[in-house]
Amino acid sequence: MQFTLSEIAASLGAVVFGDGDIVLVGAAEPMDAGPDQLALAMNPKYADGIAKGKARAALLWDGADWQSLGLDGAICLNRGKAAMPLLTRALDPGLGIAEGIHPTAVVDDTAKIGAGARIGPLAVIGANVTIGARATVAPHATIGYGTVIGNDLVLHPGARIAHLCTIGDRYIGQSNSVVGGDGFSYVTLDKESAVESLRGGMAEGEKAVAVVGSHHWARVHSLGGVEIGDDVELGASSTIDRGTIRATRIGRGTKIDCQVQVGHNADVGEDVMMCGNVGVSGSARIGNRVVLGGKVGVSDNIFIGDDVIAGGGTNIYTNVPAGRAVLGSPAVKIETEMAIRRELRRLPRLAETLRELQKTVSKLVDKN
Amino acid sequence: MQFTLSEIAASLGAVVFGDGDIVLVGAAEPMDAGPDQLALAMNPKYADGIAKGKARAALLWDGADWQSLGLDGAICLNRGKAAMPLLTRALDPGLGIAEGIHPTAVVDDTAKIGAGARIGPLAVIGANVTIGARATVAPHATIGYGTVIGNDLVLHPGARIAHLCTIGDRYIGQSNSVVGGDGFSYVTLDKESAVESLRGGMAEGEKAVAVVGSHHWARVHSLGGVEIGDDVELGASSTIDRGTIRATRIGRGTKIDCQVQVGHNADVGEDVMMCGNVGVSGSARIGNRVVLGGKVGVSDNIFIGDDVIAGGGTNIYTNVPAGRAVLGSPAVKIETEMAIRRELRRLPRLAETLRELQKTVSKLVDKN
Amino acid sequence: MQFTLSEIAASLGAVVFGDGDIVLVGAAEPMDAGPDQLALAMNPKYADGIAKGKARAALLWDGADWQSLGLDGAICLNRGKAAMPLLTRALDPGLGIAEGIHPTAVVDDTAKIGAGARIGPLAVIGANVTIGARATVAPHATIGYGTVIGNDLVLHPGARIAHLCTIGDRYIGQSNSVVGGDGFSYVTLDKESAVESLRGGMAEGEKAVAVVGSHHWARVHSLGGVEIGDDVELGASSTIDRGTIRATRIGRGTKIDCQVQVGHNADVGEDVMMCGNVGVSGSARIGNRVVLGGKVGVSDNIFIGDDVIAGGGTNIYTNVPAGRAVLGSPAVKIETEMAIRRELRRLPRLAETLRELQKTVSKLVDKN
Repeated sequence: MQFTLSEIAASLGAVVFGDGDIVLVGAAEPMDAGPDQLALAMNPKYADGIAKGKARAALLWDGADWQSLGLDGAICLNRGKAAMPLLTRALDPGLGIAEGIHPTAVVDDTAKIGAGARIGPLAVIGANVTIGARATVAPHATIGYGTVIGNDLVLHPGARIAHLCTIGDRYIGQSNSVVGGDGFSYVTLDKESAVESLRGGMAEGEKAVAVVGSHHWARVHSLGGVEIGDDVELGASSTIDRGTIRATRIGRGTKIDCQVQVGHNADVGEDVMMCGNVGVSGSARIGNRVVLGGKVGVSDNIFIGDDVIAGGGTNIYTNVPAGRAVLGSPAVKIETEMAIRRELRRLPRLAETLRELQKTVSKLVDKN
Repeated sequence: MQFTLSEIAASLGAVVFGDGDIVLVGAAEPMDAGPDQLALAMNPKYADGIAKGKARAALLWDGADWQSLGLDGAICLNRGKAAMPLLTRALDPGLGIAEGIHPTAVVDDTAKIGAGARIGPLAVIGANVTIGARATVAPHATIGYGTVIGNDLVLHPGARIAHLCTIGDRYIGQSNSVVGGDGFSYVTLDKESAVESLRGGMAEGEKAVAVVGSHHWARVHSLGGVEIGDDVELGASSTIDRGTIRATRIGRGTKIDCQVQVGHNADVGEDVMMCGNVGVSGSARIGNRVVLGGKVGVSDNIFIGDDVIAGGGTNIYTNVPAGRAVLGSPAVKIETEMAIRRELRRLPRLAETLRELQKTVSKLVDKN
Repeated sequence: MQFTLSEIAASLGAVVFGDGDIVLVGAAEPMDAGPDQLALAMNPKYADGIAKGKARAALLWDGADWQSLGLDGAICLNRGKAAMPLLTRALDPGLGIAEGIHPTAVVDDTAKIGAGARIGPLAVIGANVTIGARATVAPHATIGYGTVIGNDLVLHPGARIAHLCTIGDRYIGQSNSVVGGDGFSYVTLDKESAVESLRGGMAEGEKAVAVVGSHHWARVHSLGGVEIGDDVELGASSTIDRGTIRATRIGRGTKIDCQVQVGHNADVGEDVMMCGNVGVSGSARIGNRVVLGGKVGVSDNIFIGDDVIAGGGTNIYTNVPAGRAVLGSPAVKIETEMAIRRELRRLPRLAETLRELQKTVSKLVDKN
């Protein structure tokens, strides 16, 4: 795969300065870029790297003096970061799966696969599956029976989509991601479980009492599937459980990082972003454009409004109204948490101050 | 798969009201249920949904006036939630793996597989494996050599069970779950590692000092396997490491959600429940009927007594006596943590109050 | 596999006491060891177990009176723990993959595989892959095109290495681990995202304000691979994302436990240890010999110096200087966190004390 500098500029809707015929096979950081790699230096702080490196062509900041940097050609952009999606997409060599269905793939006769598919070695596609056009299914990926998927599917090696799920266009499942595992749902048949009793107590603001006993967990099977909108990506090793009766839902445009768990019956909005190690418990409802930082936990059955942002490590136990930025465990407004953290660091000193003040006051009381 | 309302009632040991011959192909929430789906409305608050929906038959609360809701038939139950296991099990269409061994599966000649097995495409079963009756092994699942498993095994796509493990009846391994990976166990050969020194210091209550140096980690191989009792389920992408010398143990009836890690040599009791993202460190011992909420962490080598409940996000660094409900990081009694959290929110104000009080007292001292 | 006691002693560079010809097939804990298993009792506290058990041979502490324990032979060691790597390595029966390439493995014609390889059933190795000598690749493992790997590779079932990665000697990838998934990198094309605005505000110490709006996430493709040094191990279900332009880097000797996520562009040093459920965000830089306890979170773009130790459950939001031991959320010096935790437990009482003191002072003020 190779491009001329002009071709790259055209894909970005940008103008070429200098020699547009320079042939490029990839991109690199300013210091690392060879003569056939586009140096990425969208900020003047990288000027030095360009000057010292071997790049002939670079992507520079708006108004850069590309000639003084020793380049033969350049593209200069106002907000360079915004060019990264188009640029990296053009240069991405892909998963290397040949067009057609590999002879070792096991594709059920009743599966319908759209034009232009690349089904890799040892992939398994079940009965009555429907997949749109231009699917890429890497080795060891699995699609269960009756599942319906849109166009431009990309499944990395070992990605799983279970039976009876519905997925929109341009879904990307990273390696070993899992859509449609069974929900974690059990009941005790004989009596209320300790957890139910405890939760009841907490909800009513009473002192929590653990009422426990000998019980077994009876499994509730998950009959609902998973419904995923267009343009959703699921990170490596992440998991989305299927619903109990209705489907677990993930809205259009939502992006999920690695090691994330979304529980059964969860209802996640559009353009949501969940960073690594996030855990969303069963039946939680999450609005649109919510951002959950790394390791955020969301309790079951709660509601998080549109545009909420939760900083890394936040544990959300209760509903969060739309538009709020939260942090901490338990989650509070980010300003509140920052104030708490400031005082926490001084807490041992504060306690000491209080003890001394007690003594002083005690003496005053004696005197008076 | 289809059932009559009478058949469903019989499986629940319940009475049918109205037309028991209504044919049903699944279940749905009250508003979503079509004429051939059983509407699930075990609480009077769903009455309106039933009335507005298209369901002909429903599972209702005890004493419900099913006729006034426009239904043709109904089952009314006292504690409807308790009917969910039997009901959903009856309606679960399963993994869709045909009976027999798929020709693309790689099953070692020495493996013994019980009657009624469903071994899917591209599954791998190693030498000297023994599996009981009615096993379902989905595509891309793997069972290592010498492992012994009971009846009614269900392995979802990509589930792994390593070599030389022992598993009871009715084990369910969700997609990409892993039993029997090597433990995370290293020693430094030259001298104590920084972690050992630090831990020593902390244990003795001294000021912790990081004694560090140039060291390499020497790997301790894991010779023990994993021993799992009957009726255990392991969630998608969850992992249970094998023991160093003896086996890591998981007791009968224990249920483990997705994204959970159980370290080497851990000894987990019966009927334990671990929710998503839980991490149990090596050699931890966990009693019976313990419930660990989402994202709970358990330090290595500690002991958690029977019937302990840990709320979501709790980090348990030290032993917890039986029957206690804990919360927070570090874990304390749930009442204590609730009290701390109440005061934490007021901490900035408390600090301000203290500063003002100091000034007031200072003036009083000057006066006196 | 079996050894004589003398052979084991020789592998440890130790002396045999008593009968060196005892034949052993494995090791076990003192109470569990049979006559053909080496009892491991490197501490006098296990003397009783030895005496009560059936072992004929044992690994004992330095100076142990092996004859009085009823043994026929023994090895006595000064720091027995240090013998575990060699001992367990000698006794490890391995993954049971036959030498050669299994006929069901799919190995591209252009892949170069060194001598002595064991490529298991249904493994997939892509075009232009280069692997050194003595590789073990278990069933369902995948290596993407163009990846270069050193000698003595071990990939457990379902382990993934993506295309265009570089890995040193003795790499161990546990089951379902993933190297080289795409980074979690998105930009908004129209305007600054809420997260960027919020971060800007926080960096400048201003009150954080969530500036939100309707935006879509535009995907930045990951063109960089992953570069891994010699002697690295990656735990089951753990994931290391590929870099955006340059590679994500993991230094020589670094050990990573299960359920860990390392984000794109991260640069991790040598001999680092990351315990279970750790999350390292994108572009974080981590020095040499750093130890991250279970569930530690590291924010993106920060720097952690050499020899830092972070206790379990710590969230690191900002740079940490070399040599520091940290704990808590947010991470502070471990002594500070221990002091904070001590006072936190007393916080409700402290608040109460302050309230009473206020009343006392108020009375004093009235009097004066």
